[in-house]
Amino acid sequence: METTEEIIKILKGNIVYTETCNSFEMVENGYIVVDGNYVEGVYKDLPDKYKHFNIKNYGDRLIIPGFIDLHTHGAQFAIRGIGYDKELLPWLETYTFPEEAKFSNKDYAEKVYREFVNELYTEGTTRAVIFGTIHQEATEILMELLEGKEIISYVGKVNMDRNCPDFLKENADESIRTTIQWIESCHNKYKFVKPIITPRFVPTCSDSLMKALGDIAINNSIPVQSHLSENTDEIKWVGELHPDCESYGAVYDKYNLFGKTKTIMAHCVHLTEEEISKIIKNQVFIAHCPSSNINLSSGISPISKLLKNNAPLGLGSDIAGGETLSMLSVMSCAVKVSKLRKVCYGEDEMSLTIPEVFYLATKGGGKFFGKVGSFEGGYEFDALVIDDDNLWKVRKGKIEERIERLIYLGSSKNIMSRYVFGKEV
Amino acid sequence: METTEEIIKILKGNIVYTETCNSFEMVENGYIVVDGNYVEGVYKDLPDKYKHFNIKNYGDRLIIPGFIDLHTHGAQFAIRGIGYDKELLPWLETYTFPEEAKFSNKDYAEKVYREFVNELYTEGTTRAVIFGTIHQEATEILMELLEGKEIISYVGKVNMDRNCPDFLKENADESIRTTIQWIESCHNKYKFVKPIITPRFVPTCSDSLMKALGDIAINNSIPVQSHLSENTDEIKWVGELHPDCESYGAVYDKYNLFGKTKTIMAHCVHLTEEEISKIIKNQVFIAHCPSSNINLSSGISPISKLLKNNAPLGLGSDIAGGETLSMLSVMSCAVKVSKLRKVCYGEDEMSLTIPEVFYLATKGGGKFFGKVGSFEGGYEFDALVIDDDNLWKVRKGKIEERIERLIYLGSSKNIMSRYVFGKEV
Repeated sequence: METTEEIIKILKGNIVYTETCNSFEMVENGYIVVDGNYVEGVYKDLPDKYKHFNIKNYGDRLIIPGFIDLHTHGAQFAIRGIGYDKELLPWLETYTFPEEAKFSNKDYAEKVYREFVNELYTEGTTRAVIFGTIHQEATEILMELLEGKEIISYVGKVNMDRNCPDFLKENADESIRTTIQWIESCHNKYKFVKPIITPRFVPTCSDSLMKALGDIAINNSIPVQSHLSENTDEIKWVGELHPDCESYGAVYDKYNLFGKTKTIMAHCVHLTEEEISKIIKNQVFIAHCPSSNINLSSGISPISKLLKNNAPLGLGSDIAGGETLSMLSVMSCAVKVSKLRKVCYGEDEMSLTIPEVFYLATKGGGKFFGKVGSFEGGYEFDALVIDDDNLWKVRKGKIEERIERLIYLGSSKNIMSRYVFGKEV
Repeated sequence: METTEEIIKILKGNIVYTETCNSFEMVENGYIVVDGNYVEGVYKDLPDKYKHFNIKNYGDRLIIPGFIDLHTHGAQFAIRGIGYDKELLPWLETYTFPEEAKFSNKDYAEKVYREFVNELYTEGTTRAVIFGTIHQEATEILMELLEGKEIISYVGKVNMDRNCPDFLKENADESIRTTIQWIESCHNKYKFVKPIITPRFVPTCSDSLMKALGDIAINNSIPVQSHLSENTDEIKWVGELHPDCESYGAVYDKYNLFGKTKTIMAHCVHLTEEEISKIIKNQVFIAHCPSSNINLSSGISPISKLLKNNAPLGLGSDIAGGETLSMLSVMSCAVKVSKLRKVCYGEDEMSLTIPEVFYLATKGGGKFFGKVGSFEGGYEFDALVIDDDNLWKVRKGKIEERIERLIYLGSSKNIMSRYVFGKEV
């Protein structure tokens, strides 16, 4: 058994986090006391009882929570940053489905997923919620790589049995059987990685498949992830496929895939008022994916309004719709795009502030994982130590300015240390 | 005198450039023959007469034209990436004017400008058109630093004599006298750097100052740069200040600052049809600054429409409205923002293609400097050699995909060599 000395960790530096989205909590030259896996407290002056412990002194560096990526596609890593000449549906047909089909090959899957997981680590993402492909073996390879790198994550074997090319189509029975088998094979297998039920999106999932997936989620207490209201053509199509449902979101709800267990819906660009109400009532998480929404010309999500309405919200890199796994880049994109809502849709629209976007990338998304993404007492300790000297060659700014510039100009090279669940990784 | 062997340079690699904005010219494993400062030709097979020359073989790397930045503020380098919570006019008052006032101190100017020039070089900008401040000495420091780094550039001592704080205001006579003195002191002083007449923008320049600056430009055959129609509050203000003029652009035109000598107008987000006609008639260059236009909530420029109408067009980083000098980042921002015009303003709007934005960052902006920004015969040879291996860990894409991903995900670390006016720098 570990002694107390080994369990207590103390880090010193400029500590920044967000309890609420309204402002930063900042302690310059402060201390974070970590007890095992959890934050014990943040202090301007270290309490006497901790004074005999070793202190890891990071000097003038920033210590911030690790980044949370609520939506991304590991299997699309090799096609990120190319092919943004199409909108969602033709983009899937032209670029994405052919790429995902390659994951029937385990060697290819291992090669791509290894680079994907390394990049997640490099970019300071300590927790992620990830789409795989329809292939069980490839999905398990991804899970093992994440486990090895100690990135705490939910991973989904994708289900899709209609409106997709034959080379990437399951039949409903096979899809359900494989999913159950996969869930069983995951049981107690990983410390850091968990399965998540993953119907790709309504257009590619038959009613019987969605019904079965809802049952599997509930019976096994497993969360759910999918896509919602990303693109206007997609929404129109869902309306044609499900004329009995009031909205796109109502289709998922019909099949117990909309908050019966913990749920993330990615995008949510064009929600109806009814969908917003249901999201808030069911506490469905929205993964806001600004980079993807702009690259695929999907639109500008009313993210400030959703935040003001207390919808559960986090950010998603959504590669390969988004071009990068860098949550810094996703944050700056979220702020930029939010400004254009005001420009395009008028004065009532608000843009995201820097504390708001920082909150979304840490505590907002972190809530999906529990008490994660903040340095409040009792939170799981995920942290990044940031050396931003290269961004401040003339003179160093105030802490808040350093965070703002980090978001606009920082990159993985500014991340000098990473902690996940109390441990440096 | 140099021998022929010393004057002829031959580079081998994957050569990419744009003769028009419609498509890339690509020669895989091709040769560029450079004769002194100029491109002699691009060849798939090297002509016999060049076979005895040494060949600089860059292997599988890309060779592209150097980047052209048509609009940026050297003196705002230290405040880039912070303070994007305000729109143009309050942003100038709150952040920009106080920062520019510091350039009365030569030591501070030297410190900031040195970092600015180093970063231009690092980011692969081979030519730039730059605002200084009202201070003659500081502006000359900037010019000397650019000359030392061999970045071909136009630099402006800023003029402003009204509607600005006393600590950054000239009187008209002093402003005119200093400008003439500065122009004279630049005469034959630099090989790579030239002066450009720089009224800040209409709101801060009195009629008598603008009239005098127009005269100076014409009498000395010196080009002109300023800002035009960036922000709706600004445009309204110009209308109140100059009720006799049909438009914002017409004010500059009235004072011979709108194409009488070679002219760049930055931003041009909200142009009237009359202004567009005058821009095309007078062949005024538009510096499109997408990053700044989004950061300061200025709007979305109808850039595809301007391109289709053959308006002279290039890109500007516009720090500190823009957060970065990276023209790769400005290019990706231009494409992204152009997609949102369609989303917000409807089907008639077009988004920028990858060849179009590459053209804007090279040959489009290069036209301001003459035959610059392309590898056609007779063009001045500016080039970047790009090592993009770190972007293609799974498998390397086709040349066009490599350019697209470079724009979306590349950075200065992908630039392995730089050539300016025929010489490696």
